[in-house]
Amino acid sequence: MSFARATAVNSSEHPFTAEIAEGWDVVGNANGGYLLAIGARAMAIAAARPHPVSVTAHYLSPGRPGPITIDPQIIKAGRRLTTVRATLLGEERPLIELLGSFGDLRSIEGPTRVDAFPPDLPPPEECPRAEYDPARGFPPALMDRLDLRLHPDDARFLGGTPSGDPLLRGWVRLRDDEPMDVFGLLLATDAFPPTIFNANLPVAWTPTVELTAHVRSVPEPGWLRCRFSTRFISGGMMEEDGELWDSSGRLVAQSRQLALTPAG
Amino acid sequence: MSFARATAVNSSEHPFTAEIAEGWDVVGNANGGYLLAIGARAMAIAAARPHPVSVTAHYLSPGRPGPITIDPQIIKAGRRLTTVRATLLGEERPLIELLGSFGDLRSIEGPTRVDAFPPDLPPPEECPRAEYDPARGFPPALMDRLDLRLHPDDARFLGGTPSGDPLLRGWVRLRDDEPMDVFGLLLATDAFPPTIFNANLPVAWTPTVELTAHVRSVPEPGWLRCRFSTRFISGGMMEEDGELWDSSGRLVAQSRQLALTPAG
Repeated sequence: MSFARATAVNSSEHPFTAEIAEGWDVVGNANGGYLLAIGARAMAIAAARPHPVSVTAHYLSPGRPGPITIDPQIIKAGRRLTTVRATLLGEERPLIELLGSFGDLRSIEGPTRVDAFPPDLPPPEECPRAEYDPARGFPPALMDRLDLRLHPDDARFLGGTPSGDPLLRGWVRLRDDEPMDVFGLLLATDAFPPTIFNANLPVAWTPTVELTAHVRSVPEPGWLRCRFSTRFISGGMMEEDGELWDSSGRLVAQSRQLALTPAG
Repeated sequence: MSFARATAVNSSEHPFTAEIAEGWDVVGNANGGYLLAIGARAMAIAAARPHPVSVTAHYLSPGRPGPITIDPQIIKAGRRLTTVRATLLGEERPLIELLGSFGDLRSIEGPTRVDAFPPDLPPPEECPRAEYDPARGFPPALMDRLDLRLHPDDARFLGGTPSGDPLLRGWVRLRDDEPMDVFGLLLATDAFPPTIFNANLPVAWTPTVELTAHVRSVPEPGWLRCRFSTRFISGGMMEEDGELWDSSGRLVAQSRQLALTPAG
């Protein structure tokens, strides 16, 4: 099933309806970026604006395959941006709470100054692919829905020898040449393995409290180059900062999530 | 008026009430961090949790001195965290929309690994103070409510010679030895002059679309060391990343805001 279909929203009813599809999960729980993409699609429809500019999700309960509802509410429809909130509801409980501002990225202009570069990566065919391991559950089923290739230096945790540095760089694209749209960027902000896997710390998983994504440009077709890094693991929490660059070498999205670091 | 009093929330009524005090403004508009602090206080009361862990504000309309109302709604009260949304309403319109998760930072534990250092600053007495200039409006009135000292290398824009680098480092504390609490950290995430002032670009102001703050620890008494920087000015927008460190050398908050960069 394509990403577009797996995140489709039926806006002919109120509340809107959608379906968590099978296979976009990590050990049974729908991926956070996948849920964010569904929610943001619903919010963009409600706002009648094509692009999420900044969207924040707080993660409340794990999502399982099946029907969900979304009730976007317009907070303010401004000249450039429309601010919307929404709850993504599973059958029994809220899954994520969302707040975002939506607009048309092509209509916003200003000067350019960029003090950063896309991550330096070997070509995709020289980067190990994280492939779904149904027996262990890691890499998770989500890896069957994407084509995700890790920088060889950052992929060693796959073989049991973490790099020691909470950093993951790599390529990602949707499968079957499906174009990556702005909602695909939201998926990609949470699609890489957790940086903690390279950190050599007694933490088995890092449940996301909150994720904010800024979409800075509509991506050109092709692979995304991504960099996810963590500088502060402290106080029972860590941030994970993401940069997503498109095939034209432009930053297309930035993300930051706050996750808990329970002893594993 | 103390910060505590200027951000006090009356929770005996529903919706809660508060007052935007005089003097916490930038050319007449209440500072974004100040409004965030009022909103987060109201949300923490509603959640019955002492600390904002992650809180996001979308800025809708400028706030002027006078009465406001806040209607925090509990989205989910979990074991560790309570997620709350709220609208901060002025007399005629919504000012900011808020979403956050609240908890007790002292009860969250995990391993520590920090790959960063507080900014290297000369002592406060060797750092120029940004002082309110009532005639020009810049530095703004807010600077009378804080004691904010800039790294000499980053303060040159005050004299009309920007450094060329969108970076601002410095010290900040509340006035009259008022202790900096977790809500003061929220104020501090937006209290420094915009990084664009050092960028040598034709942008006169950078209205905030969205600001997310992660409070990572309760600050120890004393000065905060802060670092605000921007790497991506593109597509009519820029991010501004903040790090706030307390007097014990611990990161106490991280922030990122997305702002527009209209031609000035």
